[in-house]
Amino acid sequence: MKKEILFDFAAESSKKVYKDGVIHPIKVAMKEVSLNNGESILLYDTTGIHGEQGYVCNPKEGIVKVREQWVEKRAARDGGYKTQLWYARQGVITEEMEYVSIRESQGAKESYITPEFVRDAVAQGRAIIPANRCHPESEPMIIGRDFLVKINANIGNSALGSSIDDEVEKSLWSIRWGADTVMDLSTGLNIHATREAILRNTPVPIGTVPMYQALEKVNGKVEDLTWEVYRETLVEQCEQGVDYFTIHAGVLKEFVANAKARVTGIVSRGGSILAKWMSINDKENFLYTHFEDICLLLKQYDVAFSLGDGLRPGSIADANDEAQFGELKILGELTKIAWKHDVQVIIEGPGHVPMHKIKENMELQEKICHNAPFYTLGPLVSDIGAGYDHITSAIGAAMIAWQGTAMLCYVTRKEHLSLPNKDDVREGVVTFKLAAHAADIAKGHPGAAERDLQMSKARYSFRWTDQFNLSLDPSRAREYHYEMIKDTGKENDFCSMCGPNFCAMRITQSIDK
Amino acid sequence: MKKEILFDFAAESSKKVYKDGVIHPIKVAMKEVSLNNGESILLYDTTGIHGEQGYVCNPKEGIVKVREQWVEKRAARDGGYKTQLWYARQGVITEEMEYVSIRESQGAKESYITPEFVRDAVAQGRAIIPANRCHPESEPMIIGRDFLVKINANIGNSALGSSIDDEVEKSLWSIRWGADTVMDLSTGLNIHATREAILRNTPVPIGTVPMYQALEKVNGKVEDLTWEVYRETLVEQCEQGVDYFTIHAGVLKEFVANAKARVTGIVSRGGSILAKWMSINDKENFLYTHFEDICLLLKQYDVAFSLGDGLRPGSIADANDEAQFGELKILGELTKIAWKHDVQVIIEGPGHVPMHKIKENMELQEKICHNAPFYTLGPLVSDIGAGYDHITSAIGAAMIAWQGTAMLCYVTRKEHLSLPNKDDVREGVVTFKLAAHAADIAKGHPGAAERDLQMSKARYSFRWTDQFNLSLDPSRAREYHYEMIKDTGKENDFCSMCGPNFCAMRITQSIDK
Repeated sequence: MKKEILFDFAAESSKKVYKDGVIHPIKVAMKEVSLNNGESILLYDTTGIHGEQGYVCNPKEGIVKVREQWVEKRAARDGGYKTQLWYARQGVITEEMEYVSIRESQGAKESYITPEFVRDAVAQGRAIIPANRCHPESEPMIIGRDFLVKINANIGNSALGSSIDDEVEKSLWSIRWGADTVMDLSTGLNIHATREAILRNTPVPIGTVPMYQALEKVNGKVEDLTWEVYRETLVEQCEQGVDYFTIHAGVLKEFVANAKARVTGIVSRGGSILAKWMSINDKENFLYTHFEDICLLLKQYDVAFSLGDGLRPGSIADANDEAQFGELKILGELTKIAWKHDVQVIIEGPGHVPMHKIKENMELQEKICHNAPFYTLGPLVSDIGAGYDHITSAIGAAMIAWQGTAMLCYVTRKEHLSLPNKDDVREGVVTFKLAAHAADIAKGHPGAAERDLQMSKARYSFRWTDQFNLSLDPSRAREYHYEMIKDTGKENDFCSMCGPNFCAMRITQSIDK
Repeated sequence: MKKEILFDFAAESSKKVYKDGVIHPIKVAMKEVSLNNGESILLYDTTGIHGEQGYVCNPKEGIVKVREQWVEKRAARDGGYKTQLWYARQGVITEEMEYVSIRESQGAKESYITPEFVRDAVAQGRAIIPANRCHPESEPMIIGRDFLVKINANIGNSALGSSIDDEVEKSLWSIRWGADTVMDLSTGLNIHATREAILRNTPVPIGTVPMYQALEKVNGKVEDLTWEVYRETLVEQCEQGVDYFTIHAGVLKEFVANAKARVTGIVSRGGSILAKWMSINDKENFLYTHFEDICLLLKQYDVAFSLGDGLRPGSIADANDEAQFGELKILGELTKIAWKHDVQVIIEGPGHVPMHKIKENMELQEKICHNAPFYTLGPLVSDIGAGYDHITSAIGAAMIAWQGTAMLCYVTRKEHLSLPNKDDVREGVVTFKLAAHAADIAKGHPGAAERDLQMSKARYSFRWTDQFNLSLDPSRAREYHYEMIKDTGKENDFCSMCGPNFCAMRITQSIDK
């Protein structure tokens, strides 16, 4: 592992701290930032043990298995492993539920999310806790409209490099900047071993699109895909510990005709593969016809469905069309079926949507999918942002998250153009953390507003170091600031932009005196 | 002038074209992009003569005076110079009005903005055409809620460098990326000569905050400021050709007490200077008490008011408070007074505002300020985005522009940290063009959606060059894409991200065949 992926919290006046559970003997990880006015703030942190001072990752060993004992104990007691949804419906507060209740209150002066509130949200299907029993390394987290907005970062071995260590490094790099889940979208060689290394070393839930590996198994020939090959792939990935699967079970034959008339057709890889398979075989989507079989498998591991939007719009012109909303209706029906089997569900959403059509997406999803969490890719509010599509999508993402979307899939500035490098991943993750955070403020999460308040107090007091440490990317904030004052090398009691005569905050304070 | 500020439209398969007026003998500049499918699209373009192929700028000479004859002819005919608002109220369609009616229809298949529609909007005060008679180099443009959203870029000689040529270069660099107006916020040496060079070479309206120069005239001593010094500064800048002035006439004594109780006090430089002046002298704001004197001066040149929000919130905690809305109410009263004198008005707005409080800002501004155009700085939807505040503000900017804000002042990623360099300016301008464009789409401007449609068609046809040329930053889009395919050096009929087996658009098209 290379040096730059180390998590140097000390440089940010921060340290990993643990808060005890009340119901269960659990230790909830968070990051405490010490401020120069004597106060401190607890922040949500996804780095797991990698954030411990001096911790050095050895990818061959794997990290601590936080959930191992909980899982084993419950399975012994309850006659086999049950899903979080099953427990929630039984009225049982699991270790995972208490964990997320404490985690979600971070930053706030007082805890405001109770374990019972979490249990109830999971029981209703309004939130999920992705928690494959075979991925005990993952620290519990929750995805739901009543909780902090989460973000996902995509990696994959056709992306930044190809070695297994590279992929682990990419995964850790994503969580270093705040990714709440990571999707491994590998399509090339060594899919199995790469995923194994990622799972054993990453403390956040891992998602995949199993179709990609299934297609590799038939050498990329869509016509050779079968339910059996796909099912074998699911079992393999369940056993490894993948926490959620994107499954495009709502792409039905009848919608493909609508999608063909579009400006940009089908832009989901999984969706296009299935459309082609249906066209070749003149049969209905086998993920749809075998949906209950999939439920029976996933419930054994507590792998969650991320019901894929294979017909999401790929352009402003195609937004909110019949194909898109037709598929959404099917996803709503499938949600009910999954819930019948106690399998947790999130629903994937667009895509490219102009600002004035975002609200309709959220409202329809809520209604049609019975309040199951929404997980969107942006949406991008224009098609012409090439080179800046992390921004095009962050605008839509912030808006739809405010409306209730529970998780945002990041988009990098290389979207539509090429594959992201490390800088692009960092820029993309931080941009989406910002969009999610803006939504958390607008939704009224007390912990979110508290961080902004501390930041603004630091700003008005010219406490520069505190400003850096409270920002989402302390190293960049510090670097930009010191570019400016590198000649004097010292911090000032006025904005470096305005100089001493024109600093509004300094002038205002001089009035007070 | 350095080489990189040349406008190499040829590399973008683009050229400057001119469309004739019907009412007046005018030639309206725009940029035509030729596409590889035989179509072409007309785009709004702010580069003026600098966009002409082979044009080399000589800052000492100045550029062509597009409006010189119109101004002189009208003054001779009408017994002195009159404002655009005066003409609009008389029912007269000026050359400027016809010009913008043609300009605003760019990109659309058919012209949809008539000269009469423009005249009516100006007559109602719903829109302004900044057009100082002493700045004939400026190509007419309109700022109003019924028109394309505009963006402003700030420059100033304490910023990127300090020579006069540097400042002209910064101004041209801003319009090269699409700035619709430029504000010269210089506070250092050579203010007069710098502004002169900018005005003589820039084909977009120029704004200033005259208080900065007035304060320089009294050596930075707020206590020495007087109405006389300020008035002298206004005359000087009117004569030079500044098109709009930020004037903080709404910062009244009664509001300053409210602002003192805030988390971040007063963050407007002009606002804090006036607050201090009032505190020292125990008198009401002299810009307020002399407001009609200012009107009588500005109407002689057709300089527009940009009524400054000296009490804009500088943090999420301070958004939408009494100080802010108290000042807004005064700005509404001042608007009526300015209109009485036929002086055009825009109203400046925040600042830092969480997403859920943006709409209230727009609705109150509309109501209180009688539909005068709103011109906002962002707003930033969080305080913790240090290093990424072009994005924090673009989110708020896109939302408020969709709600009706007419012009957006750009924010760079160096905001709160240091001064922007050329890369930061480019990133900031393009980011704000994107936010403005997203709002134009959401507001239903046909020309805006047309560009996205052409982009998406190019994307679905793998016409890479067309995608670059239709984007807001063709050189960056091209650069990112060629990073990826540099090994083969050729364009592909599949997305470079997914490879041939996993390109959704390619798979979809194979179904059609």
